[in-house]
Amino acid sequence: MGIKAEVVKLAEKAKAASYILMNTDTQAKNKGLKAIAAAIDKNRDKIMAANKKDLALGKKNKLSKAFLDRLALDDAGIDSMIKSINDVIKLPDPVGEITSSLKRPNGMEVIKMRMPLGVVGIIFESRPNVCVEASSLTIKSGNSVILRGGSDAFNSTSCLGSLIRGALKSAGLPEDAVCVVGTTDRKAVGELLKLKEYIDVIIPRGGKSLVDFVSRSSRVPVIYHDAGICHTYVDESANLDMAVKVAINAKAQRPSTCNAMETLLVNSSVAGKFLPEMEKELIKAKVTVKADKGSMKYLKSAKKATEKDFYTEYNGLILNIKTVGSLSEAIAHINKYGSRHSDAIITRDSAAAARFEKEVDSAAVFVNASTRLHDGFEFGLGAEMGISNQKLHVRGPMALKELTSEKYVVRGSGQIRG
Amino acid sequence: MGIKAEVVKLAEKAKAASYILMNTDTQAKNKGLKAIAAAIDKNRDKIMAANKKDLALGKKNKLSKAFLDRLALDDAGIDSMIKSINDVIKLPDPVGEITSSLKRPNGMEVIKMRMPLGVVGIIFESRPNVCVEASSLTIKSGNSVILRGGSDAFNSTSCLGSLIRGALKSAGLPEDAVCVVGTTDRKAVGELLKLKEYIDVIIPRGGKSLVDFVSRSSRVPVIYHDAGICHTYVDESANLDMAVKVAINAKAQRPSTCNAMETLLVNSSVAGKFLPEMEKELIKAKVTVKADKGSMKYLKSAKKATEKDFYTEYNGLILNIKTVGSLSEAIAHINKYGSRHSDAIITRDSAAAARFEKEVDSAAVFVNASTRLHDGFEFGLGAEMGISNQKLHVRGPMALKELTSEKYVVRGSGQIRG
Repeated sequence: MGIKAEVVKLAEKAKAASYILMNTDTQAKNKGLKAIAAAIDKNRDKIMAANKKDLALGKKNKLSKAFLDRLALDDAGIDSMIKSINDVIKLPDPVGEITSSLKRPNGMEVIKMRMPLGVVGIIFESRPNVCVEASSLTIKSGNSVILRGGSDAFNSTSCLGSLIRGALKSAGLPEDAVCVVGTTDRKAVGELLKLKEYIDVIIPRGGKSLVDFVSRSSRVPVIYHDAGICHTYVDESANLDMAVKVAINAKAQRPSTCNAMETLLVNSSVAGKFLPEMEKELIKAKVTVKADKGSMKYLKSAKKATEKDFYTEYNGLILNIKTVGSLSEAIAHINKYGSRHSDAIITRDSAAAARFEKEVDSAAVFVNASTRLHDGFEFGLGAEMGISNQKLHVRGPMALKELTSEKYVVRGSGQIRG
Repeated sequence: MGIKAEVVKLAEKAKAASYILMNTDTQAKNKGLKAIAAAIDKNRDKIMAANKKDLALGKKNKLSKAFLDRLALDDAGIDSMIKSINDVIKLPDPVGEITSSLKRPNGMEVIKMRMPLGVVGIIFESRPNVCVEASSLTIKSGNSVILRGGSDAFNSTSCLGSLIRGALKSAGLPEDAVCVVGTTDRKAVGELLKLKEYIDVIIPRGGKSLVDFVSRSSRVPVIYHDAGICHTYVDESANLDMAVKVAINAKAQRPSTCNAMETLLVNSSVAGKFLPEMEKELIKAKVTVKADKGSMKYLKSAKKATEKDFYTEYNGLILNIKTVGSLSEAIAHINKYGSRHSDAIITRDSAAAARFEKEVDSAAVFVNASTRLHDGFEFGLGAEMGISNQKLHVRGPMALKELTSEKYVVRGSGQIRG
């Protein structure tokens, strides 16, 4: 069977299973999730042996240390997979929720009901735990999933996939609710992206080049996170101690994440007082600073920032600093250079806060809090599959509810159109 | 200036205007809408003169009568444009609505707030009134719009576009909130579809080939309606008089619409009683019937239906009829052959109704009502821009609320990530 036929067959199976899972009750879905957690726990040796194969191949192929770190699974990694499944079991099931109901003048009742999307395709790179996290979220939300991991994680992904499928079967659920693409051939991804008859949404999880490739090629709707260029703006009325504390957290607590700050904007009226204090903490945290002219005079060790720097997601200990003359200038900078992800204002002025909240066009806008808090758990949504910074369907964390949409149910007594 | 540069410039202007409109209050937006209605009323002659040019060119180019009918504007057509604007003025403004609010253990407040999508691109074919309907909905929901009409409606569209822009300016709103692509060159569409930095969603309004082209080519997310293959299932417990009344309405009241029925499914236990009565009405309404073997024996004048017929959207007075042995078979048929649009069951059995509601995977599922009722006005949403039968962002009518999405606003007091 050719790649194309193989992928189509897989998608057909996933679609058929999705109709069963769509109507499976919460208890049965949780039973399936428990079986998966148990199967992973029982087969630690098998999982780690498969992972060792990938790691050995990865070393042979001279993959980067960072890549191999993301790929590697140890007992603690497996513990955290099991914990993530148990967390999802505890979350409320969004399927079937009635979100609104309206009686019309002709007597018909118009109801909105939350239902699964159907088949979710996940295309990811090195982290084998994506298999488990994505499967547990899709199962709980009544969706089938097609998993396509990177070729460098093929053995780990295949092993986890077959454990998950076996567990589903043992729990009386359709094993095809979780399908794993069984080839490392890159053509398979291209074929998946064409199957809009079977796949309802594609979620690429990985670096910018993967996301770009998928969103450029896909005929299936895509939910993506393409960049995290996040800002903190220190307003003229800010509590400057709070500003230092929040800004250093946004930059340095975990700089590789998408919600870490890349640019600090400072109202010029407080720059002289704020920047020297901020710089002390940045030096302690080993952050390299690139600054505009207005900030340079208050900083000892900054390099000159270029226009391009303000469009850059560093994912590391580098920070742009820029002074602005007003709140309006700060908002305009964020809407121009940002990636509509996570942006914060530090202020004591409620009118400034209200303007920032409304006018900054980002998935999450923070007032007096760190952009690092943009996260499903922190927002009370539970587990999530990344953060969307597109504007359709979902902005922010992609959690259980976001794997559903609302259909209309109309209950009548013979109504017709006049 | 080349086509590409021209389109990029237009999109930049629309984007800049969108930031202003995003923060324009309801009263100011309504003032703009009133000015548009007045400008259209005052310039009827101008609009009809432009429309006559298009009609003359259309006749010269031998366009079909149906096409010219859709293109033609008379006084009644202009009246109905004005009415549609006044209807939108009366609708509630969705922007800024707080849809949920949650206090987290660390004291921060996590709020979801409804905001405009930003820039909406509309690609449409012959109907010049799309200009007015799309502009009024996008303005009211705080979005900019880029309008690209078919080349055969170019004069009408340009005239309406410049009246709308002038009215916006006179009302103190940014005229670039409504941008009209100023060329009939088809390349402009291809360029628009690339501009994901400026355009937040593309809505193609037209036939299947337009929708296919747009959804295949676009890098901007697309909301579309691609087919209306709608069903009515007559259950074994149905009130058969109601079934005849509702089914004939679904087929014949306006067969060219997307929510008209294409296939009637009949439980075989009631086929002998129901189909002869149904056929009488179908004959009166001049409907041609294509039937499966099981139905043929109860019908006098049906042709044999092929497999392909069940996948066909006739948009006219043709109907497929098929008998099924069970509710499950009906649901499976609909999920296989349908287009996830509008599907109905006629039943007196509440368990059957509940299963149909949950298991039929369509944007709108009807119990004892005609699929023709799938419509923004009928659902109480007011004006709409068509019906989505994709599953992301919106299923069903694309009205004001659907031109927004929800962002997170987080209000803190110095919270950081631990």
